[in-house]
Amino acid sequence: MKPGNRKIMDNRIDAPIRLYGVVGWPLGQSLSPFVHNAGFRALGSAAVYLRWEISPERLPAFVESMRLLDIQGCSVTIPHKISLLPLLDDISPQASAVGAVNTIYRKNNRLCGENTDITGFLMPLRETSLESTDVLLLGAGGAARAVAAGLALRRARCVFVTTPSDKTHLPLAEQFGLVPVPWQSRHDVNARLVVNTTPLGMRGKHEDETPYDFTLASSESVGSPRDARIAYDIVYNPWETRFLREAKLAGRQCVTGLDMFFAQANAQFHLWTGQNLPDTLLSVLRAR
Amino acid sequence: MKPGNRKIMDNRIDAPIRLYGVVGWPLGQSLSPFVHNAGFRALGSAAVYLRWEISPERLPAFVESMRLLDIQGCSVTIPHKISLLPLLDDISPQASAVGAVNTIYRKNNRLCGENTDITGFLMPLRETSLESTDVLLLGAGGAARAVAAGLALRRARCVFVTTPSDKTHLPLAEQFGLVPVPWQSRHDVNARLVVNTTPLGMRGKHEDETPYDFTLASSESVGSPRDARIAYDIVYNPWETRFLREAKLAGRQCVTGLDMFFAQANAQFHLWTGQNLPDTLLSVLRAR
Repeated sequence: MKPGNRKIMDNRIDAPIRLYGVVGWPLGQSLSPFVHNAGFRALGSAAVYLRWEISPERLPAFVESMRLLDIQGCSVTIPHKISLLPLLDDISPQASAVGAVNTIYRKNNRLCGENTDITGFLMPLRETSLESTDVLLLGAGGAARAVAAGLALRRARCVFVTTPSDKTHLPLAEQFGLVPVPWQSRHDVNARLVVNTTPLGMRGKHEDETPYDFTLASSESVGSPRDARIAYDIVYNPWETRFLREAKLAGRQCVTGLDMFFAQANAQFHLWTGQNLPDTLLSVLRAR
Repeated sequence: MKPGNRKIMDNRIDAPIRLYGVVGWPLGQSLSPFVHNAGFRALGSAAVYLRWEISPERLPAFVESMRLLDIQGCSVTIPHKISLLPLLDDISPQASAVGAVNTIYRKNNRLCGENTDITGFLMPLRETSLESTDVLLLGAGGAARAVAAGLALRRARCVFVTTPSDKTHLPLAEQFGLVPVPWQSRHDVNARLVVNTTPLGMRGKHEDETPYDFTLASSESVGSPRDARIAYDIVYNPWETRFLREAKLAGRQCVTGLDMFFAQANAQFHLWTGQNLPDTLLSVLRAR
């Protein structure tokens, strides 16, 4: 048999192909198709992951298409994370806590909503003893909700929250029992973990900005490595932000948005396939 | 770089994946996913072909899903070939002639209906001089319409049509200018080309049956190979039918349903990609 024929006879061609994708509007340069398609290939799995740019008014029709075409799962991004909630059959406790869905998966032919941003945020902190940690949370948007829910789940000692625009953080503080701090007082908080969820540092007009000046922060001495002072940026494009560069100079351990992105993607992949993404993929992403 | 990483870095992972499929109800053992996915792989094309079992009342929603999810093309099978017509944006002259669509493709963001059964039927007869040929058409259902349209296109000399159930062939005869023949007189027609479009011989309860007795047929002597007497069965499961076995014993050239299936699939593939399916695929299908 010629090599060409062997390729044609490949068993995977006969397997039914499962369909996944990301839904958002607009989508821009999403990393998700690259990551999940690489994961499916590594497993030798007959599955593909597509991009679907769906405007808000077409979201209900999109969910009906998922049912009709037997789409197995979806990543969900802005602006659909909240408006999806009433369109699905089941919502997990984690997604309910955040009030937003970033993942759809099927279970017993029902469309289930999950939020893997919580797991994604916590994974890089799995060695950190949050119970004895004070946290400063910068920003109070959708991503901050997932961070606050994750910190509550892991019983962080005290979480301070602040935003450049005054008062928008007050509802979040009330719901999750955070301590609101005025923006101009943020450097007075002695927080072992500082988390940026603002768009400052993101590619584009805010790329050279940072929400925090580590030279103004109080800097208590560090005990064991478990007690290291940490800066965590959820921005992943670029993943080397000014916030993290300056944190490193100030002696902080750094967690990048790419670490969180990969961990939440892996949680999605695991919901869909029962398997993990290949570890090597994270270093491939860093090198891109 | 490890081989695993090279696989992950494969450029095709980053290409947008185009979506195709077959829509029918029920679908059973369709050969189309195997054939088209093998074709995409042979081209190194980032495209996949799925199976969609869609009940008749959900067909309009399916067409909307095609638009919403940017599905690039579809094969269409029973029972949707006719009911699709009013749901599409354009219908080709060939599909209009048959009154049925077996292919959807996109052109300038419009959903276009085509019928490749005509091309598929004619392709194995491309060396045959139909202008000097009398034809006996057995059966008058949907497939017979494509055959009659193809024979008209190639100006076959005279086409006789007959069905076991009397009179159902009369509308077809009238529309395409065929000569109706009573079922019990079918062996009296001196036809160089006999085409079976009835379900007799198909896998299942009719597998051991045949619509024609070649020992009763008149058998004039043959001139050049271009004038060979031909038996053509459009049944392709199994593709070695009793009809063709007996035709071969009676000295007829045989065209199988697999030849027609492959030619119509190739016409679909060409509409979608501008390329042909690999030739080797037909022998792979025969060996399955």
